[in-house]
Amino acid sequence: MFFVFDGLDGVGKSTQQTLLTAWLEMQGVKIVACRDPGSTALGERLRTVLLSKSDLDIAPISEMLMYMTARSQLVAEKIRPAVESGATVICDRYLIANIAYQGYGAGVDVETIRSVGMAATGGLMPDATFLLDIPTKVALSRLDRTLDRVESRGGEYFDRVREAFLTEAKKFDNVHVIDASQSVEEIQSEIRSIALAVMEQQA
Amino acid sequence: MFFVFDGLDGVGKSTQQTLLTAWLEMQGVKIVACRDPGSTALGERLRTVLLSKSDLDIAPISEMLMYMTARSQLVAEKIRPAVESGATVICDRYLIANIAYQGYGAGVDVETIRSVGMAATGGLMPDATFLLDIPTKVALSRLDRTLDRVESRGGEYFDRVREAFLTEAKKFDNVHVIDASQSVEEIQSEIRSIALAVMEQQA
Repeated sequence: MFFVFDGLDGVGKSTQQTLLTAWLEMQGVKIVACRDPGSTALGERLRTVLLSKSDLDIAPISEMLMYMTARSQLVAEKIRPAVESGATVICDRYLIANIAYQGYGAGVDVETIRSVGMAATGGLMPDATFLLDIPTKVALSRLDRTLDRVESRGGEYFDRVREAFLTEAKKFDNVHVIDASQSVEEIQSEIRSIALAVMEQQA
Repeated sequence: MFFVFDGLDGVGKSTQQTLLTAWLEMQGVKIVACRDPGSTALGERLRTVLLSKSDLDIAPISEMLMYMTARSQLVAEKIRPAVESGATVICDRYLIANIAYQGYGAGVDVETIRSVGMAATGGLMPDATFLLDIPTKVALSRLDRTLDRVESRGGEYFDRVREAFLTEAKKFDNVHVIDASQSVEEIQSEIRSIALAVMEQQA
């Protein structure tokens, strides 16, 4: 089983991911948690380059390919072995984030991202993606820290990214939009219902 | 105009590249020299990761994508602006090296490499590639230094890579196989003839 949390920064992904992990583990489900980019030695190195605020010139197509590099290593080294061993993978972000940020957000051709994404992952896609959604301004206001390289691109960029997430969600049955302006408990309860339904369906 | 030098390490690419550059500059041609991966801040950072001998685990598909990341930045930042300004770019390695090393050498699907390569470069391909060819053993014996991460893979791997270069060359009219067991002068003379012919054709 392979679950992904995605959405703008500041929507509460990590809180919800932690709660779902704890709840599933209590039921005896073996969880492998990871973040994309990251969770491998190569991925963490690339993550530092991607997200540290610096003067490094990175073209949108190169940014997309760098995320794909990290993702391909993550799939090869962690996600595929975990899924094949019967564990449940819970990953912070995945391909849909590139489609939203570098595609709709920065103008890289979306079909190109999709096809490079298929190559990078060998076609390994999530069973369910929990897309946490709140208005852009609320999400940005929740980030009480210095913005990173991607976050510091400003409001209009993030509006495009939010719209992109919602547009993508409409195309795929397994991308579930969750209203993240609800309470933490309400959000978690919705996520658990979806997770249960998906797990029963695949059992 | 866009020229690429490729082939196994140890075939004499840099010598020939230097000689061609000097000769073209004497004729008033503006040359932009670069190496792939490299020649941009991002590319040089990725080059260090790719070629330094370390314990870093990099899957063949990830290695390929990391080369593509560096290449896409190189095209966006240097090659495309140079070609568009009328300069002649001379680049040490390009896409054909990924097809040979990660494709035929390490088993990554060759058509995948080609299509990711088209995306990464926006379709910007060399007008001519000079493929310097000598038997694998001769090439390896010429490297009088510690082998890097890729070079240390052993003889059988390099035999596959050499065959791959030659197979690819047969598919494309603008990939010119040069017998690099000739003298430096003979090799250079052959390269100059080809360069001249290509430049006259395109003038």
